[in-house]
Amino acid sequence: QGTRDHPPAHTALRDRLLAAVVACFKRHGAVAIDTPVLELRETLMGKYGEEAKLIYELQDQGGELLALRYDLTVPFARYLAMNKITNMKRYHIAKVYRRDNPATTRGRYREFYQCDFDIAGQFDPLIPDAECLKILHEILSDLQLGDFLIKVNDRRILNGIFAVCGIPESKFITTCCTVDKLDKVPWEEVRSEMVGEKGLSPEAADHIGEYVQLHGGLELIERLLQDPKLSQNKLAKEGLGDMKLLFEYLTLFGITGKISFDLSLARGLDYYTGVIFEAVLLQQENDHVEEPVSVGSVAGGGRYDGLVGMFDPKGRKVPCVGVSIGIERIFSILEHRMKASGEKVRTTETEVLVATPHKHLLAARLKLISELWGAGIKAEMLYKKDPKLLKQLQYCEDTGIPLAAIVGEQELTDGVVKLRDVATRVEVRM
Amino acid sequence: QGTRDHPPAHTALRDRLLAAVVACFKRHGAVAIDTPVLELRETLMGKYGEEAKLIYELQDQGGELLALRYDLTVPFARYLAMNKITNMKRYHIAKVYRRDNPATTRGRYREFYQCDFDIAGQFDPLIPDAECLKILHEILSDLQLGDFLIKVNDRRILNGIFAVCGIPESKFITTCCTVDKLDKVPWEEVRSEMVGEKGLSPEAADHIGEYVQLHGGLELIERLLQDPKLSQNKLAKEGLGDMKLLFEYLTLFGITGKISFDLSLARGLDYYTGVIFEAVLLQQENDHVEEPVSVGSVAGGGRYDGLVGMFDPKGRKVPCVGVSIGIERIFSILEHRMKASGEKVRTTETEVLVATPHKHLLAARLKLISELWGAGIKAEMLYKKDPKLLKQLQYCEDTGIPLAAIVGEQELTDGVVKLRDVATRVEVRM
Repeated sequence: QGTRDHPPAHTALRDRLLAAVVACFKRHGAVAIDTPVLELRETLMGKYGEEAKLIYELQDQGGELLALRYDLTVPFARYLAMNKITNMKRYHIAKVYRRDNPATTRGRYREFYQCDFDIAGQFDPLIPDAECLKILHEILSDLQLGDFLIKVNDRRILNGIFAVCGIPESKFITTCCTVDKLDKVPWEEVRSEMVGEKGLSPEAADHIGEYVQLHGGLELIERLLQDPKLSQNKLAKEGLGDMKLLFEYLTLFGITGKISFDLSLARGLDYYTGVIFEAVLLQQENDHVEEPVSVGSVAGGGRYDGLVGMFDPKGRKVPCVGVSIGIERIFSILEHRMKASGEKVRTTETEVLVATPHKHLLAARLKLISELWGAGIKAEMLYKKDPKLLKQLQYCEDTGIPLAAIVGEQELTDGVVKLRDVATRVEVRM
Repeated sequence: QGTRDHPPAHTALRDRLLAAVVACFKRHGAVAIDTPVLELRETLMGKYGEEAKLIYELQDQGGELLALRYDLTVPFARYLAMNKITNMKRYHIAKVYRRDNPATTRGRYREFYQCDFDIAGQFDPLIPDAECLKILHEILSDLQLGDFLIKVNDRRILNGIFAVCGIPESKFITTCCTVDKLDKVPWEEVRSEMVGEKGLSPEAADHIGEYVQLHGGLELIERLLQDPKLSQNKLAKEGLGDMKLLFEYLTLFGITGKISFDLSLARGLDYYTGVIFEAVLLQQENDHVEEPVSVGSVAGGGRYDGLVGMFDPKGRKVPCVGVSIGIERIFSILEHRMKASGEKVRTTETEVLVATPHKHLLAARLKLISELWGAGIKAEMLYKKDPKLLKQLQYCEDTGIPLAAIVGEQELTDGVVKLRDVATRVEVRM
């Protein structure tokens, strides 16, 4: 339930997407690692907050309590701690598992790919964070998905806001989860969850609302740094100072045009400790709406300085920041777009079909195709002893093979091959 | 248990191996598909014979009886039947799961990659089978693994032998499993398992032994076609006739030099119905042994004409033949070889490190690296505000980055970059 087979057209399109993502990760000098699909259940527990209920638990015959990995971040942190690695820039592209209610039309499945890039290590502040945002910007541009926006916030700013609004620290995480819903539901609903379910006072909720509905750029950061309450809070001040430095670096990268400091961004996961971000695609101009409207998150990430330490027996910390691309969501969008435009993906890369125009020439075909394969040429032939030439040419047209190499008795005698351009029907002997 | 993390050096080497395998599969015009890691338990039951005990069964919270896929062949057959596909040439590279006793030094894990290529469809006999063997030959040659041998047999020949030796049909499969051990243990042991565990008469076992210890080429096929007993058996005659045709095609492909018709080859799995094959690597010449000795199977495959029908409600058959490359085994061999030779794999592809020779130049570095990334150049920089030049050059040497692009005050003023060849220390201003 909630999984699917990927037919050739899917797989070809997905491989093309993944190739673009990998190219970007390699451009930024990342190494690749791989970890098992199964983790010990205890490894995943206590890392995901309210989302933990979606972890796919399994029990094997040997009695080990296992779980299918929920993301690639926690396995990465476990890997770093287990191997005592304090410094690594890696990417990992693999399937993860969530017992979510599948919403297959919107590209939400229980088994899906994630593409993660993370930088682990003690470095000068915000330089790795800025690179993660640069990578996200490059990938979304490279994939030509149309207009997008990257929202940025900082967990410390949110916690600072909660503190100055009088929320007890024990309720920071759960309040964070409620704020996180602001991209899907209006403030009124978020407010009533805060007051109802989460037991905040109406005044506190309203106060939070004044902050978390703000978004902007450098000028908003400057304004909040002057905010009489926030500027008194240590966490918020740290977060805002870092946000300012981040925007300086993003300006040097020339990407602030698509970045918004958005105080409603919270991210659901427990493990974030600093900068957090999320990318959304905006409605296309030709959709005839005045305001660009978000059509959903396609990537996210942030800083998690405490996660590796949770796996280290001595609690040694390795600061980390990373970005995760939701390739499945992007895939759904591109697939819809291709269906709409009628564009067809070729599912093979075959360059030439080896064909014969009459009977008793199987041996000639086998010899020629063997030579072509030996020369690294992508070649196919029909698995028939005596196929009709028309059938062979039809196969080229159906599967997009551009050339046919034809050998008949005459060609064999002359020691040549007739090469036919399938589209134009032009033939040359060579 | 029995799984492992793959550090960057592993992953880089494995990606290189997989790229060579994929290149071959694409050269032969295959499409790619992907299926879930989880299958319904009932899908896998009754397909693997005695190996079924190694299936990784799992129960999810929703109560679905699931299993991790055991190979990529059964999911492929299920996919064909579910989608009523009668004709497809596909490859699939993915992890499979077996609850085997892990023998990690020999590259045997519970989670490992398989690389499968299969041809499904009703075609003229043995042409697809020959192509599978050609592919196996190409891959083992491309990977430069040293000398290898591909053993070929046919389930019908084996069954014919069992029949003429007086074995009841109900014992064919179990006898087959015993014969399959001949590559690991001497005939005497196999014989005693036949007589003891499997309850064959000593005469029948001896009779089988006369056949299954034979191996050779076309002349052996011809001889067995004249064998007074075998030639009377319909199955054996069919199998031998097809084997002869297969060898004709393999001769046209020019690969018979590394192919041996070997009557001891049985393959453990239930689902094979015709041609079966297995590739083994032979001891290297420099190992100073007189006879080349097998160092284990690295690939196998065969024809399975009944498997798709088992998933079709009306039992409609789709004949299939395929080859599976045991990339993990090959990986272990290459890894040992690289360790022995001291060769080092680069784990990144970074072309240039952006460096600065003195303080207060972080902005210059961020701007230059951004330009390089924009131009598709693989570039890194240290995540330090003011790193020492020596540290930066050391990083190049440690990670194999060939070039450093250096910007200092002078270069900024002149509008140039100093490009340094890390190995030769030659610098040019550009």
